[in-house]
Amino acid sequence: MSLKIKESEVDIVIAALRSDLTAFLEAWRPFFSPFHIIIVKDPDMEEDLKIPPGFDLQLYTKSDMEGVAGATSINFSGHSCRYFGYLVSCRKYIISIDDDCFPAKDSTGVLINNAVAQHLTNLENPATPFFFNTLYDPYREGTDFVRGYPFSLRNGVDCVLSCGLLLNVADYDSPTQAAKPSERNARYVDAVLTVPIGSMMPVSGINIAFNREALGPALLPGLRLPGEGKRRWETMEDIWSGLCAKAVCDHLGVGVKSGLPYVWRNEAADGGSAIESLKREWEGVKLMEEVVPFFQSVQLQKTLVKAEDCVAEIAAMVREKLGPLNPAYAQAAAAMEEWVNLWKALGSQGV
Amino acid sequence: MSLKIKESEVDIVIAALRSDLTAFLEAWRPFFSPFHIIIVKDPDMEEDLKIPPGFDLQLYTKSDMEGVAGATSINFSGHSCRYFGYLVSCRKYIISIDDDCFPAKDSTGVLINNAVAQHLTNLENPATPFFFNTLYDPYREGTDFVRGYPFSLRNGVDCVLSCGLLLNVADYDSPTQAAKPSERNARYVDAVLTVPIGSMMPVSGINIAFNREALGPALLPGLRLPGEGKRRWETMEDIWSGLCAKAVCDHLGVGVKSGLPYVWRNEAADGGSAIESLKREWEGVKLMEEVVPFFQSVQLQKTLVKAEDCVAEIAAMVREKLGPLNPAYAQAAAAMEEWVNLWKALGSQGV
Repeated sequence: MSLKIKESEVDIVIAALRSDLTAFLEAWRPFFSPFHIIIVKDPDMEEDLKIPPGFDLQLYTKSDMEGVAGATSINFSGHSCRYFGYLVSCRKYIISIDDDCFPAKDSTGVLINNAVAQHLTNLENPATPFFFNTLYDPYREGTDFVRGYPFSLRNGVDCVLSCGLLLNVADYDSPTQAAKPSERNARYVDAVLTVPIGSMMPVSGINIAFNREALGPALLPGLRLPGEGKRRWETMEDIWSGLCAKAVCDHLGVGVKSGLPYVWRNEAADGGSAIESLKREWEGVKLMEEVVPFFQSVQLQKTLVKAEDCVAEIAAMVREKLGPLNPAYAQAAAAMEEWVNLWKALGSQGV
Repeated sequence: MSLKIKESEVDIVIAALRSDLTAFLEAWRPFFSPFHIIIVKDPDMEEDLKIPPGFDLQLYTKSDMEGVAGATSINFSGHSCRYFGYLVSCRKYIISIDDDCFPAKDSTGVLINNAVAQHLTNLENPATPFFFNTLYDPYREGTDFVRGYPFSLRNGVDCVLSCGLLLNVADYDSPTQAAKPSERNARYVDAVLTVPIGSMMPVSGINIAFNREALGPALLPGLRLPGEGKRRWETMEDIWSGLCAKAVCDHLGVGVKSGLPYVWRNEAADGGSAIESLKREWEGVKLMEEVVPFFQSVQLQKTLVKAEDCVAEIAAMVREKLGPLNPAYAQAAAAMEEWVNLWKALGSQGV
């Protein structure tokens, strides 16, 4: 029922928004070393990257993006540069972690979880989106399906997306961050669960893994706020991407998990204030009130069985239904369509 | 946004399947003492109950059932006797815990959680069934809504059902119990979450609390297996009840939570073997394959705004769609209809 992912099937994709990756990569060295790493440099960054030696890695920069994508509606700047890494990977699975995140340790310095191994475990074991198991992940050692769980659903379905969580600096939007500047997340919830079919969720791109072969085209650089910044609390790109990905998973009948692994997320070193970001973020907050009803209404044609075709259909719906409301949506639809074309042209075999 | 439940608004309902309740009630004394308790004696039990003094409690027995319900399709025997307590209560909230469960403590004897207080906290704070929050209960101290969560949904809706979990002896069915006789649940997952709308779940009646005023009639003695026993792994009654309750909650737009609190569940003292129960349980396992698609198809009329009217409509659907498949369903439909009538006659004001 469960499968075993080989190290050679995995790319670790890191979006480099900080020029000095030394501390980040050294902290992750024991976990990343067995894997191939793709580093994508934020095209807006001018400094050279500092990358410690001893990794099996490939670096992509602005000139690679220009060479591959050419003139495009797709915006790869900031956190969105990771999507270029998803595109040029030629492996079956991707793990992607923000470069301000570190292995999670408890107060005595003991590792809480191996995030890389936990993501792979999540993808190796089935998901159970069609019926809720109150005992959390039923495939975990020491647990199972609760009484009353239908036997016909106990084989589960493929898990194609694993969404991890954050210790220390939680993943809030700027209004919440501004209201609770000193709140830190110290609570380790030792659970993984399948997000049920039909339930929408805000995927955070900070700490995720996915089956690129099955879902890759649905993790995409689509919606960008005008003036969307490089601080996570300002971003909408991963939220939009996550809503697309969940809609595609629900349509394809495959699963999404949320919970473990945790990573430790550092404070923003630049001392950026959430209050300064409030004005920009407010735009995203307003858009969500249109975006959520839209995604709730998405019904894809039964004949669509590939993620890229699902994305193309969602893009057409975005243009038709949301396009008239805000230019950002028309832009998102165009980016999604170009993304699908790029993916078809080269994403499926890698570069 | 959150409310404060008064002690005088709560009944603790205990289904007495064991004649000596001394150890059970003494263990719970610090937690139960501020509340009124309803004890319902299994009508099949012949021995007198042993109940320690010092509680504010009311005992109901077989003769009360005969007096109130008369000749009826409803079967109050075994664990189902608790439903009689739900019926005759005249308070707004009910907490119900099986009599083989004890306050959860860690290996050093320190209390892990106050189950009574946690259930009330779950009911006092809103639920969020319309969008998944990856940070679990957003109203808990130290947490909030994750970035991307629509602001229009952050007020949540009333939580009317709180489903707790079990440490030590997990809530398995007899095939699982037979396959893993020595498995014990030692994992404390420090989280409460809302089960999303549209997601079906097997509610376990072992450790629950609910808003009786809003949901009471939907927690009901409906489906009984021929020869359903008194061991939890043999029972279907609470699974069926839970599917009804969830369908009603989804229709009414109110919430169900799962997670904390934990209770410690003891081994069965009678040494009953799960393997002996397998034959009976298998009937339930087969029925679930019909029951789940049925509940997935339930669509109630928009005009129904009371739980009792929703139950009456579900009962009619059960008779029509499931009735021809198995006599147990026609019996369930009849019991549900009689239950609604009883509830209308006296449940709403208590006895």
